[in-house]
Amino acid sequence: MSTKPRLQLALDQTRLDTALRTAETLSPHVDIIEAGTILCISAGIQAVSALRERCPQHTLVADLKVADAGATLAEQAFGQGADWMTVICAAPLATMASAREVAERHGGEIQIELFGRWTLEDARQWRGLGIRQAIYHRGRDAQASGQTWGRQDLDRMKALSDLGIELSVTGGITPADLPLFKEIAVTAFIAGRALAEAGDPPAAARQFRTAIDDIWRS
Amino acid sequence: MSTKPRLQLALDQTRLDTALRTAETLSPHVDIIEAGTILCISAGIQAVSALRERCPQHTLVADLKVADAGATLAEQAFGQGADWMTVICAAPLATMASAREVAERHGGEIQIELFGRWTLEDARQWRGLGIRQAIYHRGRDAQASGQTWGRQDLDRMKALSDLGIELSVTGGITPADLPLFKEIAVTAFIAGRALAEAGDPPAAARQFRTAIDDIWRS
Repeated sequence: MSTKPRLQLALDQTRLDTALRTAETLSPHVDIIEAGTILCISAGIQAVSALRERCPQHTLVADLKVADAGATLAEQAFGQGADWMTVICAAPLATMASAREVAERHGGEIQIELFGRWTLEDARQWRGLGIRQAIYHRGRDAQASGQTWGRQDLDRMKALSDLGIELSVTGGITPADLPLFKEIAVTAFIAGRALAEAGDPPAAARQFRTAIDDIWRS
Repeated sequence: MSTKPRLQLALDQTRLDTALRTAETLSPHVDIIEAGTILCISAGIQAVSALRERCPQHTLVADLKVADAGATLAEQAFGQGADWMTVICAAPLATMASAREVAERHGGEIQIELFGRWTLEDARQWRGLGIRQAIYHRGRDAQASGQTWGRQDLDRMKALSDLGIELSVTGGITPADLPLFKEIAVTAFIAGRALAEAGDPPAAARQFRTAIDDIWRS
């Protein structure tokens, strides 16, 4: 697994203008920009088009955590310029399939957001639909309640990796956590407040970069 | 279980102006108005405040299907005037707890949206958090792929009812389906396109009313 993980900025502000300012400051320092669920619900899908306009070269993610109406929401996300859109793992396979169909038409991809109960058999079915990405998520609230990265997380990530599912990883990650993920095919590390609310956001991004470069030397 | 189910209009348009027109036409004929996920993502949380302004007397639902960041999203929804907000059953308990805390401060309630895997033990934990409502959902995509209401659905609804969880029911429901739910404590039947896209929307709402009145005579 020699591909170097990328750095993804999650914008989870409730105000679009604040999110756009953060994107402006940090876009030269990250590879992927995410319109987070909080931002998309607060400002609506225009958050995606506003980010697309300002960051034409970045991979852009609409983190909608779609649970139903896969085609309609995918039309919204990809129509506004998203490259990737998230679907929650609890969604019916029919939702994933219809979201993926729209994604493909737009040259985009679906990412399954792993929350709550899911099994490796589910993951095989996602692969069967042609889905190749998932997001391993230590939830914001789980994180606030003290839940940490454990052996079980890492084993499940490895198993998903072995099924051909590329993982992005999120949930209060700091540069010091990155060595934990050395054996996993990580597409991107996703950081939100750790970047946006740092005293010096570009310096915080550089710390992630340095850690990634140190661990994933080719 | 003698309480008569209410009728809930789900607004799932992608344009806010269209949704507001539908609300204007149908609000005299329904008890509860829902800003659906599609509408909230398309137009943002202003959909909730716009509906609150136009329908000050109705119970108003923000169908956000929250999976994380429970407090932040609940502040958005209840701050804009929602009475109820949905949280997806796959969300961590910590998310449900923080959403409920904000709901309570605003005099509102959380509804757990049942999607994918959940157990009666989960439902007991939701009750333990003080949550009293859930939405039994035959998903739009599941419905399109031909999945129908079955004995298993009805048995699970009854079991939730017995735990003290009031259910709202949704997913392509027509007046002809309502007798199926006679033995269940139904808070509301939720209809979207069956009302909004009917040739005569008020007449369609009256057909639901008549069916409810016939089945739940007191």
